[in-house]
Amino acid sequence: MKLNIKETPLFWPAKLRKGVLFVLDETLIPRKLRYVKVLSAEDAVKVIREMKTRAFGQLLVVLYTFIVEIYSFKGKSSEELLQRVKEVAVLLNNSRPTFPFSEVTSMVVGVAQGALHSGSDMANDIRRFINGYLKGIRWRRIERVMKIARYIKDGDSILTHCNVSGELAMAAYICSQQNKDIHFFVTETRPYLQGSKLTCWELKRMKAKVTLIADNAVGTVMSDSLVNKVIVGSDRSCANHDFANKIGTYQIAVLAKEFGIPFCVLTQPSDKIKKGEDIPIEIRSPKEILLYEGKKTVPGAEEAFYPGFDIVPNKYINKEIPINVR
Amino acid sequence: MKLNIKETPLFWPAKLRKGVLFVLDETLIPRKLRYVKVLSAEDAVKVIREMKTRAFGQLLVVLYTFIVEIYSFKGKSSEELLQRVKEVAVLLNNSRPTFPFSEVTSMVVGVAQGALHSGSDMANDIRRFINGYLKGIRWRRIERVMKIARYIKDGDSILTHCNVSGELAMAAYICSQQNKDIHFFVTETRPYLQGSKLTCWELKRMKAKVTLIADNAVGTVMSDSLVNKVIVGSDRSCANHDFANKIGTYQIAVLAKEFGIPFCVLTQPSDKIKKGEDIPIEIRSPKEILLYEGKKTVPGAEEAFYPGFDIVPNKYINKEIPINVR
Repeated sequence: MKLNIKETPLFWPAKLRKGVLFVLDETLIPRKLRYVKVLSAEDAVKVIREMKTRAFGQLLVVLYTFIVEIYSFKGKSSEELLQRVKEVAVLLNNSRPTFPFSEVTSMVVGVAQGALHSGSDMANDIRRFINGYLKGIRWRRIERVMKIARYIKDGDSILTHCNVSGELAMAAYICSQQNKDIHFFVTETRPYLQGSKLTCWELKRMKAKVTLIADNAVGTVMSDSLVNKVIVGSDRSCANHDFANKIGTYQIAVLAKEFGIPFCVLTQPSDKIKKGEDIPIEIRSPKEILLYEGKKTVPGAEEAFYPGFDIVPNKYINKEIPINVR
Repeated sequence: MKLNIKETPLFWPAKLRKGVLFVLDETLIPRKLRYVKVLSAEDAVKVIREMKTRAFGQLLVVLYTFIVEIYSFKGKSSEELLQRVKEVAVLLNNSRPTFPFSEVTSMVVGVAQGALHSGSDMANDIRRFINGYLKGIRWRRIERVMKIARYIKDGDSILTHCNVSGELAMAAYICSQQNKDIHFFVTETRPYLQGSKLTCWELKRMKAKVTLIADNAVGTVMSDSLVNKVIVGSDRSCANHDFANKIGTYQIAVLAKEFGIPFCVLTQPSDKIKKGEDIPIEIRSPKEILLYEGKKTVPGAEEAFYPGFDIVPNKYINKEIPINVR
């Protein structure tokens, strides 16, 4: 059977058009499907910090930003371009603490340095490197979509949290072509509600059956056997398989263990960091909890604590669907 | 040391004034402290169903409603009054499935029937019974506030969920008089945000130190040892000590066990129901998840599942602070 791969906008949420980067503004979904223009590294940092894009979208923005910067450097020397490439790398590396952007920006800096030493066309080398790298990732992600679809069986009811950038929705689409009858329970994922806004939206676009629940209802849907699998993404993996993901993932993992439900995570294997406790956790602004669409839920000067991520120890993982690293 | 007991509005959220019942509209807190008028059993059912009041407030409304109804029955016969008392009991019993309102309404019906048989003043008997009953509960709740304050030690950091109708905030006030340095982590408690709106508000009014967290962050604050005790309320207890409480309580109990944090519950012991699975769970409207302040968070016809409560099995309880039943 020939499978039809249908992409969702969240699978590849940033696109380059003639030196301008268009980034899907995920904060407007599902009301609007709108792209924000990024014309410089400074714009890119803003888009990342304000969480207009997240997860895989951030990686795209980080890489494409170098190509955007190259456009405004036409006619300048290789030394000037290398200098700017290094500045851009520092700006991007410092945009969000939990993400190891330096792992990719350092490769771009390396390509630029190589070009300077060998006397080749630096701009061209950087563009070719980035486009080739992303082409590889694109294929490996599609491969993983197919692996996820194989992991999902007829009759499954799957709990997911936050948003895994299109892959789960695309796997659901493949499952529907295979006539698998499946169902998703999606957590709201406070405070940003990525579950309500992104995951429900893209699963629905793929005609999947979706039920939204409050983050508070995970224990109940598990104890009532309403779900038989958990599938979540990961923002960062360690050599020992601990992983970081959206706040709330840790407690879902603990609950899955307690109720004997297999806990599956989509990972990007990496040996760069040894264990979970070495991952820095970004503490975001209390405002992001205290305000809802700009309006205070709690008047007065209340305190709030909003760690953006948590670290799931490897012992809670029953199944990993890694992206192939070649 | 003589302790000063300071009440919060949520401790006794309904008051009778000349046959009119004023019920604190908890949905407006913390923006406004406003009371809704209840002039009949039908008004009372509406106030309960729309969750203008909840938990202990519901019990007050159920009982006071009989006194409200008596006012409009002046001059009518005892038979007519008994008939209306029975109707009122049925209306109230059917207002929310999870609550055993019939346990108290049946007592009022019994008092009315007793008055008819003995020929005493039925209206007076009902009023005296209800006022006496509530006076007893008032004292027992204040006793429990003192027990909670004793359970809280200097240096404690306490996680709580939803709202326990004033008792925790009043205990915090006692602790502050005893110079105990304590801190509270309060979950938002989606979808109604009773944690953000009620618990933060009343703890702040009592000058306690409060940090709000997303329901998703419970696992993280526990694994990071930011809390050393959990104290939650209960809406209904069973003979075997299973209990029902706001959705989300079950998963907090599981997490507390996993992280070795004592889990304490304030209970109203009852033998009327044997075990947790016998408690009917109210499934509330999906709209309460899909809308936020009247606005859709997720456009389109999404499905949502909102059980209002969950049942915590007794094995997760480390400490019970019961209300004295005499």
